[in-house]
Amino acid sequence: MKNITKPTLLLDESRCRNNINRMVAKTRANNITLRPHFKTHQSREVGQWYYEAGVRNITVSSLEMARYFAGKWEDITLAVPFNVRAIQDYNELSRGQKMILMVDSLETTAFLAKQAERETALWIEIDSGDHRTGLAPDDHDTIRAIADLITNSPKLTLKGFYSHAGHSYKSRGRDQVLSVFQETKNIMTGIREAFHNTHGPFHLNIGDTPNCSLGDDLSWTDSISPGNFVFYDIVQSVIGSCQESQIAVCMVCPVISKNAKRMEIAIHGGVVHFGKDLLGTDQGNLFGRVVRLNNEGWGEALEGCRLQYISQEHGIIKADKETFGNTKVGDLIAVLPIHSCITADCMRGYTTLEGKKIDHMKGGTIS
Amino acid sequence: MKNITKPTLLLDESRCRNNINRMVAKTRANNITLRPHFKTHQSREVGQWYYEAGVRNITVSSLEMARYFAGKWEDITLAVPFNVRAIQDYNELSRGQKMILMVDSLETTAFLAKQAERETALWIEIDSGDHRTGLAPDDHDTIRAIADLITNSPKLTLKGFYSHAGHSYKSRGRDQVLSVFQETKNIMTGIREAFHNTHGPFHLNIGDTPNCSLGDDLSWTDSISPGNFVFYDIVQSVIGSCQESQIAVCMVCPVISKNAKRMEIAIHGGVVHFGKDLLGTDQGNLFGRVVRLNNEGWGEALEGCRLQYISQEHGIIKADKETFGNTKVGDLIAVLPIHSCITADCMRGYTTLEGKKIDHMKGGTIS
Repeated sequence: MKNITKPTLLLDESRCRNNINRMVAKTRANNITLRPHFKTHQSREVGQWYYEAGVRNITVSSLEMARYFAGKWEDITLAVPFNVRAIQDYNELSRGQKMILMVDSLETTAFLAKQAERETALWIEIDSGDHRTGLAPDDHDTIRAIADLITNSPKLTLKGFYSHAGHSYKSRGRDQVLSVFQETKNIMTGIREAFHNTHGPFHLNIGDTPNCSLGDDLSWTDSISPGNFVFYDIVQSVIGSCQESQIAVCMVCPVISKNAKRMEIAIHGGVVHFGKDLLGTDQGNLFGRVVRLNNEGWGEALEGCRLQYISQEHGIIKADKETFGNTKVGDLIAVLPIHSCITADCMRGYTTLEGKKIDHMKGGTIS
Repeated sequence: MKNITKPTLLLDESRCRNNINRMVAKTRANNITLRPHFKTHQSREVGQWYYEAGVRNITVSSLEMARYFAGKWEDITLAVPFNVRAIQDYNELSRGQKMILMVDSLETTAFLAKQAERETALWIEIDSGDHRTGLAPDDHDTIRAIADLITNSPKLTLKGFYSHAGHSYKSRGRDQVLSVFQETKNIMTGIREAFHNTHGPFHLNIGDTPNCSLGDDLSWTDSISPGNFVFYDIVQSVIGSCQESQIAVCMVCPVISKNAKRMEIAIHGGVVHFGKDLLGTDQGNLFGRVVRLNNEGWGEALEGCRLQYISQEHGIIKADKETFGNTKVGDLIAVLPIHSCITADCMRGYTTLEGKKIDHMKGGTIS
C-alpha cells in the first residue's frame, strides 16, 4: 500500500478464488457446465484461476476478447448477437479456437450459413424478460425458422438456447431474484419442450449473476455463464447475490483535498477510474462505499461515509466526523465499486494484496 | 466507413480545428492566454492542431497526462489539487517540463515547499460555486496563509488563482450560463482586489466550456482553460454552449439485432465505448442522439430516434418507423455522445472522416 501513488484497483485473490470455487462447486453439484463470462475480469491470470478450478469453457462479449483469451479453452461463447461486419475477424479466429456464436435473427443466421468458413455452433438467444436482445419466447415461428436454417446448413449446428435474464438486476433481495429465476426456468424449459422433438438434443444456458448466485436448483439447465460473481460489487450486495465480505476488488485512491465545512474528502479517482454507474439512495447518488484498509486488505464499509460525486478525475466523499478527522491529505481511501465489470474495464489492471500486478486485456502503454 | 467492423469514434477534423480556432480567436480578441484542457482529447495529434493555431500553454488532469504531453509546451498546468503521494513522479517530470501545480490546502503547499526539487509555480484553487475542490472565496485567512507560504518559500511562486466553475453545467440556455459567468467574474475579480496589493502581480484563470463559450468579455481574466469545446457534445448543445453542428466526434456502431415489436435497434456499442453519462429527458434516459451518416460525415440528429439504454457492450436505440424500416442488421448507426471527454477516454483512439487514425494517450495493445 505504501507504494501506491495513484488510483489503484486492488484484487483480493483469496476472495476471488473463493468466488470461483463456490460457483464451480455449485455447477458440479447440479451436474452442469460453468461457462463463466470473462467480460468482468478480462484477465488471462484470473482466467488461469478458473482453469485451475477445472473450468474449460468460457464466455466473452466481443471478438477482441475472444482473441485475447483464445488458445486455452475448449470453446468460447461470444454472447452478443453476432456482428456480421466482423465476419473476417471471426473466420480468422475460428481457425485456431472453437467458438460458439449467438444469433437472434434469420438475417444473421443466413449470413453465417453462407459466410462462415468453418463449422460453427450457434446459440439462439431467447429474451426471458430483459428486453435487450433475443427472441420473444412465444415467437415460435421465428425460433423454428432459425433453428431449421441452422440444422439445414452444412456449416452450422444448433448448440442450444441462451438467455441472459438481466432484469434480475432490478431485484432487491432473495425472494425477488428467485421469482425471476422461476420465470426464467419456466420460459427456458418451455423452449426445450417446444423444440426438443424437432430440433433436439440441444443445451439450455442462462447467464446472470443474481440468478446463478441465488438459484439453488440449476439442474434443469445445461450450463450457466455468469461473470460478475468473480468480483461481485455493491450492486450485487444490494440485490442480495453476495455479502459485502465477498467483494474481491476495491479501489484505493489518494486524498487530495478536504473541506471541513462540508465534511467532504476529495480523492484522485473519478469517472475514468470508477466508471459512472451509481445507485440512487435516500441520501442521494452513491458511486461507491468507503471501507477501511487494514493489514489483511480491507474491512467492512463505513456506514457514515459515501462516495457521493465523481467527475472525470475527482471523487468527493461525504465523511462522518471521525473519518474526516482521522484523514489527512496524502492518505489513501478505499472504495468498493458500484459495478466492478466497468471499474475493471476503466482501470485495465489489478494489484493483489501481495502487490502482484495482474493483467487486463485493455492494459495499455500508460500504467 | 465501409471498413468499420466495430464501435469506432469518428473525428471530424475540420469541425475540431474550427472549434480550436474560434476559441483561439476569442482569447486573442480579449488579449488573454488560452491554456486548453487536454483531458478531453488526450491526443498528441490534436495537441498539434492547437500548436499550429498558436497555443503554447496547456492544462491536464493527471501527472500521466502531463508526462504524455511533455516536451512541447511552455508550461503545463496540472489542474487538480496536487497529490502529494506522486511527488517523485512530479520531481522527475519537472526536470524537463515546466509545470504549474494547483493547491487548495496549507498541508499540500507546505509539503511542496519542502519536497519540490525545482522552482514550482502554483495556482491557488478558488471554489466559485462548483463545490468540488478549492477554497471558499471568502476564506481570506486560509487563502492569505497559503499565499504567504508560497511567497515565503524559495522554491514556490504564486502563479495566481484558478477556478473551474463546473456548476455552469447545470445551466440551460445562454442566460443561465451568463449568470454563472457574472458570478464567477465577481468572485475572481474580488480575489484580485483582496490580494493584489499584498501578493500581486498574479494571474486569474477560469476553466469551463459553457462560460468560455458564451462569456463575451473575458478581458477581466488572464487565461482560460476549457477543454470540452474541442469536441463539444450533446450536454454542451443542451446547455447552449454550441450548436449540434459543431460537435466534432461521433460514435459509429454496427447494428446487431432488431426488434419490430418494440421498434428497437440493438448496436454493438455500450458502456465500455460510450461511458455511462446520460441526460434525463421527458422520454426517459438519453445516452446519445442518432444522426445519419453521409458522404461528408454525419448530418443532423434524427428527432424520432434515441439511444435509450446501454449495458457493457450493447446499446438499444428506440427508432421511428422510417429509420427502423430502413435499417438492416450489419448497417452502421452513428450516435453523438452525451459527454465526449468520457467517450474519448473509453474509445482511446479516433478515426478521421478521411480514415486516418488519431492517437489517444490510453490507446493500448487492443485496437
